[in-house]
Amino acid sequence: MRLGFVGLGRMGAGMASNLVKAGHEVTVYNRSPEKTRALVERGAHAARDVAGACGGDAVITMLADDNAVESVAFGEARLIASLRSNAVHLSMSTISVALSECLAAAHAKASQGYVAAPVFGRPDAAAAAKLFIVVAGAPEATDACMPIFQALGQKTFRFGHRPEAANLVKLSGNFLIAAAIESLGEAIALVSKAGIDKHEYIEMLTSTLFTAPVYKNYGGLIADRKFEPAGFAAPLGQKDIRLALAAAETLRVPLPLGSLLRDRFLALMAQGGDNLDWSAIAQLAAKDAGQA
Amino acid sequence: MRLGFVGLGRMGAGMASNLVKAGHEVTVYNRSPEKTRALVERGAHAARDVAGACGGDAVITMLADDNAVESVAFGEARLIASLRSNAVHLSMSTISVALSECLAAAHAKASQGYVAAPVFGRPDAAAAAKLFIVVAGAPEATDACMPIFQALGQKTFRFGHRPEAANLVKLSGNFLIAAAIESLGEAIALVSKAGIDKHEYIEMLTSTLFTAPVYKNYGGLIADRKFEPAGFAAPLGQKDIRLALAAAETLRVPLPLGSLLRDRFLALMAQGGDNLDWSAIAQLAAKDAGQA
Amino acid sequence: MRLGFVGLGRMGAGMASNLVKAGHEVTVYNRSPEKTRALVERGAHAARDVAGACGGDAVITMLADDNAVESVAFGEARLIASLRSNAVHLSMSTISVALSECLAAAHAKASQGYVAAPVFGRPDAAAAAKLFIVVAGAPEATDACMPIFQALGQKTFRFGHRPEAANLVKLSGNFLIAAAIESLGEAIALVSKAGIDKHEYIEMLTSTLFTAPVYKNYGGLIADRKFEPAGFAAPLGQKDIRLALAAAETLRVPLPLGSLLRDRFLALMAQGGDNLDWSAIAQLAAKDAGQA
Amino acid sequence: MRLGFVGLGRMGAGMASNLVKAGHEVTVYNRSPEKTRALVERGAHAARDVAGACGGDAVITMLADDNAVESVAFGEARLIASLRSNAVHLSMSTISVALSECLAAAHAKASQGYVAAPVFGRPDAAAAAKLFIVVAGAPEATDACMPIFQALGQKTFRFGHRPEAANLVKLSGNFLIAAAIESLGEAIALVSKAGIDKHEYIEMLTSTLFTAPVYKNYGGLIADRKFEPAGFAAPLGQKDIRLALAAAETLRVPLPLGSLLRDRFLALMAQGGDNLDWSAIAQLAAKDAGQA
Repeated sequence: MRLGFVGLGRMGAGMASNLVKAGHEVTVYNRSPEKTRALVERGAHAARDVAGACGGDAVITMLADDNAVESVAFGEARLIASLRSNAVHLSMSTISVALSECLAAAHAKASQGYVAAPVFGRPDAAAAAKLFIVVAGAPEATDACMPIFQALGQKTFRFGHRPEAANLVKLSGNFLIAAAIESLGEAIALVSKAGIDKHEYIEMLTSTLFTAPVYKNYGGLIADRKFEPAGFAAPLGQKDIRLALAAAETLRVPLPLGSLLRDRFLALMAQGGDNLDWSAIAQLAAKDAGQA
Repeated sequence: MRLGFVGLGRMGAGMASNLVKAGHEVTVYNRSPEKTRALVERGAHAARDVAGACGGDAVITMLADDNAVESVAFGEARLIASLRSNAVHLSMSTISVALSECLAAAHAKASQGYVAAPVFGRPDAAAAAKLFIVVAGAPEATDACMPIFQALGQKTFRFGHRPEAANLVKLSGNFLIAAAIESLGEAIALVSKAGIDKHEYIEMLTSTLFTAPVYKNYGGLIADRKFEPAGFAAPLGQKDIRLALAAAETLRVPLPLGSLLRDRFLALMAQGGDNLDWSAIAQLAAKDAGQA
Repeated sequence: MRLGFVGLGRMGAGMASNLVKAGHEVTVYNRSPEKTRALVERGAHAARDVAGACGGDAVITMLADDNAVESVAFGEARLIASLRSNAVHLSMSTISVALSECLAAAHAKASQGYVAAPVFGRPDAAAAAKLFIVVAGAPEATDACMPIFQALGQKTFRFGHRPEAANLVKLSGNFLIAAAIESLGEAIALVSKAGIDKHEYIEMLTSTLFTAPVYKNYGGLIADRKFEPAGFAAPLGQKDIRLALAAAETLRVPLPLGSLLRDRFLALMAQGGDNLDWSAIAQLAAKDAGQA
Repeated sequence: MRLGFVGLGRMGAGMASNLVKAGHEVTVYNRSPEKTRALVERGAHAARDVAGACGGDAVITMLADDNAVESVAFGEARLIASLRSNAVHLSMSTISVALSECLAAAHAKASQGYVAAPVFGRPDAAAAAKLFIVVAGAPEATDACMPIFQALGQKTFRFGHRPEAANLVKLSGNFLIAAAIESLGEAIALVSKAGIDKHEYIEMLTSTLFTAPVYKNYGGLIADRKFEPAGFAAPLGQKDIRLALAAAETLRVPLPLGSLLRDRFLALMAQGGDNLDWSAIAQLAAKDAGQA
């Protein structure tokens, strides 16, 4: 396929590289151009602007947040204006349900395809083509993107034809991870104030009932109080909980645990935690208990 | 070993049977005597009262709650009064930290051993000798119980010499399970109000980030709204959250997620949910959202 | 003073009328023109559009929400474009801190004054010139507005020169009222499930420690379960809590009680409460307890 | 009346003194006997033990908590054993609903009267005979106590014949006060982080919507961050919230705001706040926001 790829951050760089490897013809664009070099060495073309990445069958965006996607799509970067008719915008960023609805409407008006396909996985999974991909969009456009997903991930899950469904699933997934972190934070604050060894406790949990990677990874970080360097920084976690709560507000779904997480992230950031991993919210439970 | 076993409920029956199978000489007692029959057929002795089960190396109690254990230990049943010096009371029930401390003191005064060893696992795991056992107590007494644990479980985790540590670990584990249920309840309420298929959603979660049994089992129950028959009834869940909060109160550890769970269980029971599985608290998130 | 007045809803009609009574020359505008009639009979002029109300010393806006104010100020209604230099926009609506900041910047750019002066009080207080007025803005512009406040309210409180401070004070005040409602809802759910008479209970509270009007008014409504007709409808309450939380998020101030209120309002509206008074959130505590 | 009075703490001393002043024959008892001296000088008799204060028409207990009342009533102090038939135990302490039910049963068995009459008011109100008294009990016994209430308080509220109703009303009242404190804490954290003057803010609130003494007193303390010396210490507040939640649990009434308060008090005490006024929980909102 002839593909454009916009956004060569920690996730996007590995993904674009995997597309090149899989034999696709990939034109990349990044705001700070030095990141394109490595890709060009591997066989990608470099575009001078977003429009220059919009000439193929599909353009993929992998950007930090709603603002970045909005300015690429609607702003001066003119993605929508540059994409040819019937080509597909494949949005893989973690963005709001509301923005995804806007994008769907704008692309429909321009007779373009729009598919939302946010991913689960950290940069190492992106580099190893081991992402889990959550997809929703019109069947034809989605089918057309399947070779892309095969090059990027280990498994693809389709959630129907409304693109914003994929965004909601992704946000709810991050909510679930943050909820697991919060529960571990409280449990560890409790048992460790009683004198129980945190590492033995986590070892027990994750070799019995809580064998999932989420508990293993975050349980270890919390027991070690190792929140730097951030794998996923607190402000990104805060943003995703905010977006989950915003979607829930529109749908009129109270999320008391989501609200608790909201307050935890605000407290963490108010107390200087901007550069910490989002799992540092667990530390607040210890602090509340006079243990930090 | 010569063992007594008090409490042949859904968990205890399978456990006592496994002890017989393992070659121990087991004398069983249950308040309603008809439950002893099956055990006797397999080779156990039947005691007429609790005291009658206290003549061996150790007596195991596997009872419903603090009240039951208290009345067996301190009340007319006279376990403490009947146990011989240096014999061990192995308490495997899920009881409060405070009662465990009381028992430790009382047994010490009577020159008896006391080991706390609550378990993770449902009745089928008890019957299959696949329990996870969390143990704490004086090293000698604990060592003496190891053959018992080998007959009952797949893995044993030792948490030092203060028996109540094991009880706290067990309670915190149930808190973590309930927290996972609550998070699933909120996430499912959110995505399903947006029209996303609950079963496909759970299938995605549990084949990616949330592969642990807790998410698989409860995710399925919640998506199916299948809360009867109860595997673990709501009042038992409420009790364990109450005991976790009580221990946290003594230690001065705020548990905001624990508090949320407390309120969920009270709401569930206030609204007629006494016979439902504890995972039915997930249904309250849907109800709050006008979806039930 | 020569004044324009935009927005003749339940609050605005009484306020504009009081300005006429006080001898000001008032030009009124309302989207649905039939509401201007009564004002004209009392001596006001009617403007054909917002611009027509912008010719005097100041134009007052008293509108439902951010959207309404935005479209009047920045949209086709062209308030900012129509106001002459040095005239003042006196914004008395309950709007967000963020919009108030935008308005301040836009008016400054146009060399116009901007004063924020949201009010506490219901329509009857507006009609009786008994409002409490919370004001912030540049000293000169604010001083110029004092005769207006004297005509509208019983007392004016100044909060410095940054207009958005007044908006935040107003939003925090509505948060405090909603918090009092929630606390009454829980307390009444508790005592009435114990068989205590709700009305005697409220009578006791409001003649001892809780003599403030908030407790008297809402205590009575809650005890009577009289939530229709709405004095202040649930979606307006939800909006104000949302704006308070948004301001808090920007400032990084966790508000756990605010979060609880957010979830209550969403639950109320999800369950069909759009036309109820905002005090109907109190009913949710009873419902949770199986009492409704 | 011939009265016994047990418990000459900060509240009890003033109350007993007022009973003497009103002409009753009062026999006082306090665990540390030096506190009886001042009362004897004013005309009271001193009893050597609790039993010595049980010879009259009624004995009043005004003690710190459940433990103190339990040990006086059921323990070695032998109040129940010493009170003559048909005499009344008037319990004015803030105790649990459960203990009040126990006392009611025990006194009924002993053919004695039992009336619960907890009070609202601080030591200065007790000294000035300005307490608000909440009463419940059998009509005859309650009627008999009316002269006592006239000597102690400014107003008496009767809540039927079940004594524990009065205790629940009292606990719910303290819950409402703590809720008002929490709401003020969050509101003040919010506006003061935005640079608004806390004292002007409280002045505005308490001269408009929140004129009740609760807001005036605590608003001032919070704005001043003046939490020492404690008028009502944090552990007493924590105890009352605990008792309110315990009563709610028995009745199956979820109290999410009560749960939030529970966590606040535990956090305050975990962080060294045992000697602070209970209104210091308000400081935690500021701390969460990075402002303390």
